Amino acid sequence: MQNSHPPTAPSERTRVRRVPKRADYEPGVIHAILDEALVCHVGFVVDEQPFVIPTIHLRQGNELFIHGSAASRMILHAAAGARLCVTVTLVDGVVLARSQFHHSLNYRSVVVLGQARLVVDQAEKRQVFASLVERFSPGRSAAVRAPNELELKATSLLALPIDEASAKTRTGGPIDDEADLAWPVWAGVIPLRIAALAPEVAEPLAPGTTAPELGRPFGGARSVEGG
Amino acid sequence: MQNSHPPTAPSERTRVRRVPKRADYEPGVIHAILDEALVCHVGFVVDEQPFVIPTIHLRQGNELFIHGSAASRMILHAAAGARLCVTVTLVDGVVLARSQFHHSLNYRSVVVLGQARLVVDQAEKRQVFASLVERFSPGRSAAVRAPNELELKATSLLALPIDEASAKTRTGGPIDDEADLAWPVWAGVIPLRIAALAPEVAEPLAPGTTAPELGRPFGGARSVEGG
Repeated sequence: MQNSHPPTAPSERTRVRRVPKRADYEPGVIHAILDEALVCHVGFVVDEQPFVIPTIHLRQGNELFIHGSAASRMILHAAAGARLCVTVTLVDGVVLARSQFHHSLNYRSVVVLGQARLVVDQAEKRQVFASLVERFSPGRSAAVRAPNELELKATSLLALPIDEASAKTRTGGPIDDEADLAWPVWAGVIPLRIAALAPEVAEPLAPGTTAPELGRPFGGARSVEGG
Repeated sequence: MQNSHPPTAPSERTRVRRVPKRADYEPGVIHAILDEALVCHVGFVVDEQPFVIPTIHLRQGNELFIHGSAASRMILHAAAGARLCVTVTLVDGVVLARSQFHHSLNYRSVVVLGQARLVVDQAEKRQVFASLVERFSPGRSAAVRAPNELELKATSLLALPIDEASAKTRTGGPIDDEADLAWPVWAGVIPLRIAALAPEVAEPLAPGTTAPELGRPFGGARSVEGG
């Protein structure tokens, strides 16, 4: 579970304090977790009250893009330079130990701190919005109608640099106390995965079309029976 | 998608502003979403910087319990009366529309604002820790070793009242512009679900034991082939 390289945090406030051996500050690790997560949770502060709002994101290079209605409180605050904390969490499994205390979840999470810039360049907005669709379904952005001027204007786009970021992961089985190993109970991990169910068509179905394969965030998904 | 009852927010700051028709303030709806979520994201503020930390939770009655190392920053701040925002998000499906703009996710989310109390009663701590294990695997808390004094002391427990809370949900297919309905592309929803894979045993396996069924948070889970 120990990472193979010595972790060094990009800043004191991104240094993982609890169980530091689970920390990782490698951009490759951080990017991969961000890319796999379907949603992120954006934290911001209004009048000393924290708010945490879920939203879709896109990681591109060393930036994390989030978008929303130009009128949304989160967007307005972030665009005005509010300090943000964006967190993503992937739950990989349930860890069933031989004591209540050692029960846990396997997970991979990333925390990004910083201030976002408002993307004003229309070409950049178009490219990122297309990539957001590509993320969920490769090839789809060109197959659907592109945004019109009104839609572009109604949607604000923010870019948060992934400079102050840390990852934290737990993998593997339960870490039981030696004295508990003979406890007469099953112990181990039940891995979890996001699965895609049978597609539900939105009528009218265009002739000759079929439901697309989902993209990278669903790379681990298996289709299972709906119900 | 419109809820059948007029939504009334418990406070101005929990009122859902964006797309208010997706809001719900019914305790039953809020509790069900909290119960199904595997993790929550806890937002708190330190020196004007928001932090968002994922953790396991338990909803019991009208309280949301979160726990952690007694030394964790999140716990220390929350126990000292810090304002919190706890958010859970369930991603239910990918909404593939006929325009980039109308792509979306189906989801159910809950936001709870408030201040937590530190649970100091040992019996209450024991009960909640047992219920946290029950939540993942019914019947298991009594089958494993209960917490000892050291473990109880090392783990702090917080209870957040679910008084200032709101739910927000999106369900159903894409809401395409009328003019786009004939676009030659598949449109609809690909539902998502958390699936449990084949259990991984932690040796030494106690004789005659088998991997348990997972509990309520995994109520929708289907077992699929691992790999």
